[in-house]
Order: sequence, then structure tokens, then C-alpha cells
Amino acid sequence: MQLKMDIAALEKFLEAEFPQVTGQFTIEDLAPMRVRVRMNVQDQHLRPGGTVSGPSMFSLADCAIYLATLAMIGPKGLAVTTNASIDFMRKPASGADMVCEAKLLKLGRVLAVGDALIWSVGQDQPVARASMTYSIPPER
Amino acid sequence: MQLKMDIAALEKFLEAEFPQVTGQFTIEDLAPMRVRVRMNVQDQHLRPGGTVSGPSMFSLADCAIYLATLAMIGPKGLAVTTNASIDFMRKPASGADMVCEAKLLKLGRVLAVGDALIWSVGQDQPVARASMTYSIPPER
Amino acid sequence: MQLKMDIAALEKFLEAEFPQVTGQFTIEDLAPMRVRVRMNVQDQHLRPGGTVSGPSMFSLADCAIYLATLAMIGPKGLAVTTNASIDFMRKPASGADMVCEAKLLKLGRVLAVGDALIWSVGQDQPVARASMTYSIPPER
Amino acid sequence: MQLKMDIAALEKFLEAEFPQVTGQFTIEDLAPMRVRVRMNVQDQHLRPGGTVSGPSMFSLADCAIYLATLAMIGPKGLAVTTNASIDFMRKPASGADMVCEAKLLKLGRVLAVGDALIWSVGQDQPVARASMTYSIPPER
Repeated sequence: MQLKMDIAALEKFLEAEFPQVTGQFTIEDLAPMRVRVRMNVQDQHLRPGGTVSGPSMFSLADCAIYLATLAMIGPKGLAVTTNASIDFMRKPASGADMVCEAKLLKLGRVLAVGDALIWSVGQDQPVARASMTYSIPPER
Repeated sequence: MQLKMDIAALEKFLEAEFPQVTGQFTIEDLAPMRVRVRMNVQDQHLRPGGTVSGPSMFSLADCAIYLATLAMIGPKGLAVTTNASIDFMRKPASGADMVCEAKLLKLGRVLAVGDALIWSVGQDQPVARASMTYSIPPER
Repeated sequence: MQLKMDIAALEKFLEAEFPQVTGQFTIEDLAPMRVRVRMNVQDQHLRPGGTVSGPSMFSLADCAIYLATLAMIGPKGLAVTTNASIDFMRKPASGADMVCEAKLLKLGRVLAVGDALIWSVGQDQPVARASMTYSIPPER
Repeated sequence: MQLKMDIAALEKFLEAEFPQVTGQFTIEDLAPMRVRVRMNVQDQHLRPGGTVSGPSMFSLADCAIYLATLAMIGPKGLAVTTNASIDFMRKPASGADMVCEAKLLKLGRVLAVGDALIWSVGQDQPVARASMTYSIPPER
């Protein structure tokens, strides 16, 4: 399996199609079926007390698994999330960026399935795990 | 089972503890183990094309089930989400507010479990379903 | 939306296609997008102590949502489960049959999504909730 | 983190406490926070056509993550499954045993969270992934 998009192409695609997340996410590493994405934590991601909110971690996992899928199917595929399951296991570190390691477990004709672990930068133990399914439109 | 907080008390609690969501959510209806919450859709909730994003729907379901729990255990309980499962079933209507009907299925000593359906206002069919688990701290 | 199969047709289909579950499940009620199925609890479903096992409740929810889907798309559709999420909320009553109320929330061209509640017969509070997604093959 | 039970102790516990699964599962490998369990596929696990059923894969993942937890907390802990999420990604190979690699992501005072991948023996690609949460009783 080969990449159809590299990091630069993915970032350009994100900027054009999802301008509202510009600056929030950085792709740190990319390989076939795998990606590592960093969330540059900003005020909008925080709960009082300075920990990253659940919806922000959801958006990080969603973005990472989506990018791993896109890198394999190319920019034409407008995949949409159909299912997500998340476990929030520990409190994120206050004021730290978060990093997400995502991998695709299945890349089918119609469905892609991936899972992800999320860490606070500088911590050993994962803060959350997520698995998500994307529906890939038939017209690709 | 009786309510320990009414709509006014819940809204005051949200404002004090979660100031970053002020104005986003309106509690439309409250009864023991049930709540209906409206998301006043704003630019920050939207994807290009004007549909509400997945993370925004996640935050609506999370907020609604959390409020249903809080109404039963009172403001001292600092419940945290431990697990969430969501199915995104249809595209939200463009530019419409969203409404979430949440109910608690279990209110235990340690865990609360609820589920929720989300609609675009004015549409018949639900856009998403979610179920979430909250861990209730022992010190309550 | 109309039923394409009635209770008798569904039971005949189950017997022919899933002979290993014969006698385990009874369809108690059927309407468009809804079904109620009873699990006739047998030794094979039990954990020591006499409570119904998790995998048995999984199979009950899976069967019920599958039957609700089949009733709408007809016997040709060989739907397969692609995702399942379950919350086990209470201990089942010892020695009691279980009943599952399932409803379809989405019946699309490619995916069907349903959810279900499971009770021990004679109890008020649900023992478990489940949501499942089925992939519907294109050739139907 | 150290193991409190080895493979022999886990197998003895399973035999005593879950006699109905005797012979179904073999623990192939065990390390702190990790286990590999093989399901010796029998007629009762099969769907027509010879593929392993969804409930059987559920029971394999449930058993594996449970054993990984038990190995860490010792035989007194009567953990119960509170949440499970599974993605069925590919058809199991006909007539082949299945193997499950499970790891604990969190081992808390009250909750343990693990995930698992399941393969048909002899195949490269995983058939299913699962994540499960167990509630650990306070009295341990």
C-alpha cells in the first residue's frame, strides 16, 4: 500500500477544505496506514483548570484518522465519520500540547476503520483511546 | 427519583464552571432522568458548507447527558466522561440549530450511563445517536 | 416504510439460515423499524451463579437489530454487523428470560443503524443497552 | 507493574470460575498488561458457512482483556464488563482458530480499560478490534 498524498499535500488540503482548523493541527509523521498529529493546544480547547476538553480530544482523533485515510485514498475522497468510540482514561496534563498516533486497521471499498491513542506531550501514559469508522463515497 | 437542580440552577452552574460554552446551549426541558438541550449553532460549530461538525455534535451530547446527571446528583458531583460512542447517521441541515434529547439509563454510585438522540431543528429523522458513561467521584 | 417480512417469514428465515440459534429467540412483536425479541435463557447463556453472560446479551441485541433490518429490506439482504457498542448496566436477574426492544434509527442504502435495550423479564430497569451498525451488500 | 498471576494460575481460575468455557481458550503468552489468547474454534462458535460468529469474537476479546486485568489485580478481583465497543472488519477464515492480542491501557482503582485485536490464525490482517471497560469492585 502506498501513500497518495504526502504531509505537504495533506496540509494544503486541510487548509483549503477545513480553514477553521488551520493552525490547530500539525502532521508530525506519516507512513502508509499511519500518522502522528499534534494538537497545538489553544484557549478554545481548554476546560476551566486548563485541561483539554473531551470534544477537543475527539476532534484530534477524528482529524488524525481522517488524514491517515485521506493519505491512502487521495484528496478526491470525501470520507465522512459514521461511528466513533472513545475512552477517556486519564486527565490531560495542564497546558501541554497533545499528540495522537493513529493507524488504519481496514481500508475497504466502502468503509475505513482506524484507531488512535492520545497523549499529553511529555507524559508516558495515554490520556484517551479512540476508534472511528469512515464511509468512503462510491464515486472515488 | 427527584431532581436536585432545576433549569435555572443548571444554567447558573454551567455559566460558573464552563464559561467557555456560555450562550452555546439552552436547556429547553428537564425532568427526572431526562433533558432536552438546544445548541445555538454558531460559526465555530460549522464545517465548510454550513453543516455542524462532528466534534460540535459530540459536545452537545456530552453536555446534555452531563446535565441530566448533574440534575440528579446535585452541583457537588464533578462527574467526568469516561466513555462515549457516537453514530453519525445523516447530514445535519445547513444553518439550523440542533436539539438533543438525553436520558439517563443508569444512575449508580460510581457510574452513570445515558443515551441521546440529536436532530437538526425542523427535521424528522435524527442526525446522530450517542451513549456516554460518566464516572462519579466517591466524595459526593 | 413498510415491512417486507412478517414474524412467520422472519422465523422461517432464521431457522433456515441460522439453525444453531433455533429455539433461543422468539419474536414477540414486529412493526416497521421496530422489533421485540425474547431470549429463552438456557444453560449455554449462563455464567456461574445463574446470570446471563455478556456474549449472550450481545447475541440477543445483534439478533434483534438484525431482524428489524431484515424485516425492512427482505430476505435477500445479507447484512453483516460492522460495529457494536454495548453498555452493561445492571446484573441480569438469575434464571429469568431476557427481552430486547430494538429499533432502527437509520436504514440507508449501504448502512443500517439500530439501538436496543435489554431487560430481564419481570424487572423495570434495563440491564444493557446496545447500538449496532450493519453493512448492507450493494447487490440487493 | 508486576504480574500477580501466571498462566497456570489464570487457567486454574478460569476452570474453577467459568467451567462453561473450559477448553475454548488457551493462554499463549502473558506479560504485565498484555496477553495473547487463542480460541479453539468449535461448532458452537460458527455461523453457517463455517465463519466464526460475532458473539464468539466478542467472548474472545472479553475473555482476553479480562485475563490481562486479572493477571494484574489477582484472583480476588471480580471485575465485570461495563462497556464494550467492537468493529468487525473482515470475514474470519473458515475453519481456522482465532487469536487475540489484548493489552491494558489503564488499570485504575475503579476502572480498567483495554483493547484487543483478533486474527484468524494464518492471516495477516485483523478480523476485528475491540475495546472494553471493566469495573473493579472496591473491596479488593
